[in-house]
Amino acid sequence: MVDVILSLPEILLKKRSGEELLNEELNYFIECVCKNEIDRSQIGAMLMAFCLRGLTTQETVTLTKSMMNSGTVQKWDPSWKTVDKHSTGGVGDKVTFPLVAAVPLFGLKMPMVAGRGLGHTGGTADKLESIPGFQIGLTEDHMRRSLEEVGCYVTTQFGNIAPADKTLYSIRDITSTVSYPPLICSSIMSKKLSEGLGSLVLDVKTGVGSVTGSLEQAEGLARMMVDIGAGMGVETTAVLTEMDTPIGYTIGNSLEIIESLECIKGQGPTDLENITCVQGAVLLCGAGVASSQEEGEEMIRKTFKDGSALEMFLRILENQGVKKETLDFLKSGEYDKVFSTAKYVETVTTEKSGAIEAVNALALGKATVLLGGGRQLPGDVIEPAAGIKLLRTKGDKVEEGDILAEIHHDGRLSPALRTRIEDAFTIGENDKPIKRVLSVVKAGRPTEDYEIYRKRS
Amino acid sequence: MVDVILSLPEILLKKRSGEELLNEELNYFIECVCKNEIDRSQIGAMLMAFCLRGLTTQETVTLTKSMMNSGTVQKWDPSWKTVDKHSTGGVGDKVTFPLVAAVPLFGLKMPMVAGRGLGHTGGTADKLESIPGFQIGLTEDHMRRSLEEVGCYVTTQFGNIAPADKTLYSIRDITSTVSYPPLICSSIMSKKLSEGLGSLVLDVKTGVGSVTGSLEQAEGLARMMVDIGAGMGVETTAVLTEMDTPIGYTIGNSLEIIESLECIKGQGPTDLENITCVQGAVLLCGAGVASSQEEGEEMIRKTFKDGSALEMFLRILENQGVKKETLDFLKSGEYDKVFSTAKYVETVTTEKSGAIEAVNALALGKATVLLGGGRQLPGDVIEPAAGIKLLRTKGDKVEEGDILAEIHHDGRLSPALRTRIEDAFTIGENDKPIKRVLSVVKAGRPTEDYEIYRKRS
Repeated sequence: MVDVILSLPEILLKKRSGEELLNEELNYFIECVCKNEIDRSQIGAMLMAFCLRGLTTQETVTLTKSMMNSGTVQKWDPSWKTVDKHSTGGVGDKVTFPLVAAVPLFGLKMPMVAGRGLGHTGGTADKLESIPGFQIGLTEDHMRRSLEEVGCYVTTQFGNIAPADKTLYSIRDITSTVSYPPLICSSIMSKKLSEGLGSLVLDVKTGVGSVTGSLEQAEGLARMMVDIGAGMGVETTAVLTEMDTPIGYTIGNSLEIIESLECIKGQGPTDLENITCVQGAVLLCGAGVASSQEEGEEMIRKTFKDGSALEMFLRILENQGVKKETLDFLKSGEYDKVFSTAKYVETVTTEKSGAIEAVNALALGKATVLLGGGRQLPGDVIEPAAGIKLLRTKGDKVEEGDILAEIHHDGRLSPALRTRIEDAFTIGENDKPIKRVLSVVKAGRPTEDYEIYRKRS
Repeated sequence: MVDVILSLPEILLKKRSGEELLNEELNYFIECVCKNEIDRSQIGAMLMAFCLRGLTTQETVTLTKSMMNSGTVQKWDPSWKTVDKHSTGGVGDKVTFPLVAAVPLFGLKMPMVAGRGLGHTGGTADKLESIPGFQIGLTEDHMRRSLEEVGCYVTTQFGNIAPADKTLYSIRDITSTVSYPPLICSSIMSKKLSEGLGSLVLDVKTGVGSVTGSLEQAEGLARMMVDIGAGMGVETTAVLTEMDTPIGYTIGNSLEIIESLECIKGQGPTDLENITCVQGAVLLCGAGVASSQEEGEEMIRKTFKDGSALEMFLRILENQGVKKETLDFLKSGEYDKVFSTAKYVETVTTEKSGAIEAVNALALGKATVLLGGGRQLPGDVIEPAAGIKLLRTKGDKVEEGDILAEIHHDGRLSPALRTRIEDAFTIGENDKPIKRVLSVVKAGRPTEDYEIYRKRS
């Protein structure tokens, strides 16, 4: 036992001087935050000192653990292989749905806490709620039974998850200390790891439609989160993915659910299926169910072809309140009997022939919010059918007059907004297709190009 | 007019990124502090960012001005030459008393706001209050009349001086952001310059008994305060003085007043007289009353010899409530008829022969507090007669058995405290005398050794 004098001014002075803080000191700081035995000025000063003097990996792990332990941490049967994925947020990102349909088929348990749409990025909870009857808020008892009987649940934040992070986040927000990577990672991981996971795959986006910035910044975040996960005893892998272009062909809540079902049935877009297989394989390898990344990918892909993923997905929906009749329509593909459709469907056509060089995910994500597919203010009601359906995407060749996209809306498409959507497409000569998965980052190993990674594993 | 968007998070982000803040931004920050339109976490974060990213001279001047203007700023007749001095705090530092006795004789006005004892350093207000009848709290009307009729007053903090500094200081205290030099200087100068001064002399101490640290640190502080003063349009000069050894031969409230009177009568210790002459001459030169530092020093010294300083000092005391009878006793030197004496006077003798190499000002300052001459807690009542009277000081030769000092106390001298006082004296071979004045720092000029400075001016 080290004999440590715990005093907030002394801890602040130590960090101000650039010293590494002891675990006891960081734990004491978080304890004071939770017990409200700290002046807010001290929290502000500490966060600024963290940003300007830096946090080591050890400090970041301790901070994350301490924030996680400030609230509810799920505890599961130790024999269970509990896994989850977290995405840093993208446009048209519906990977969660085929992933939860496939992974539990191999005996893995997925206790998933899902978020709402944030800014221009969509939210898993909002998308699922476009399915009539789906109950996103679960009791703890229901969660446990879901894992036992189905292998998966998807719920929104419940109980008292990482309350210390909640306080720190609200102060980071007003003190301009949000953007410091160790604080970003620590905040994400303290919430995610409260799910009681054995392993975790992170989908870290990079590109115009991501919130993580440049490839270099995204790699830095990925490495940091992987290190934090490892430091907390959770096997963590990050998959770096391109987010210049929307994933698949749809953006908007019910449009994305429909596309996900197509993927689950083995008829989805290639990039969506591939990214799901990569993430799923990471989890299968981590759990020892697959012996190589390539084998894992094939195992996941097979579930989409043989109908087993569809059965699992419908079981998850049924377990969370979706009626038999609805499930039957989803299975048969009679989506218009399940989802309300948009009042207007207008098209975007190209005036040029050539190849689509870019489809700006940020612009289309923002447009979807304005069409009613996301919230501009916290209380806004979402229009599930609103969104954009691409008919062509990056790399596709087009002729003048071809339809590029459909805009699904309820009357909210202004001329300015239409122009913005049209401008999201860049037509040129280059027909280079999307390269969605960029690299895989594992703890303690250098970032490797995914293609190289595949060959070596 | 620059069009500036004023938002606290944006200002915080700018300083976090290491950019220099605009005057408008710093003024806005202080305005928010004063109006309480800021979260304390933002104040803490800002102060920490100031410490870690730094404040330029321009920023420090703006911050100081803004804090000064947050409260009462004295305004005097523009034809008046208003001057003051500020000391960073020392042991046995009684320079204020001969200084106020001499300087007003040359037509300069001294509107002095004096402090209480702080830590091991004594306070001017406490010392003056050892004189029976002395009223330290004055009305604003009384202050104005004092300057008109007498040329000087000494009051404690009144009204609403720099309230922004008060708030920031209380937060610096708990966020470990006290020790950053620009914040130290800004705090001191925002209060001092609210006196409405034309020029200012700063006594910046260095050595074990100072609060300013090493010579290098003290020089840095001196230069910074001189630059701030200049930036605020106040002619400011700093005198760097040695504070390893107590000034003069006395420490303790009434003991110091008596020694000051002796100095004012031209019979005081050399170092006290010299430091007073140097500071006074800086003010006389600044006001154009003396044409050189040397001439100014002689002008001050003369007032002690010819009785004029004594008359002025008695007028100041009379103006602040001291009775005629008391003044007569002070004039005649019948001090025991004015001041209560200590119950016990014990002596410290030397067991060695040699020379006094050091008299530890810090140790004796702390001992005086413990004897009752200072406060250990804010509400403590001071014992005016308590203190230490040196019979010998640094540089003096001593024989075994010589008395080094008298300890004046009311029963609070423990054996441990006696040992501490005895240990404050280092007896060795080196009889090098005190060099009290080390250098003079003027705005925009390099620090110069005082001896060189004298020759050149």
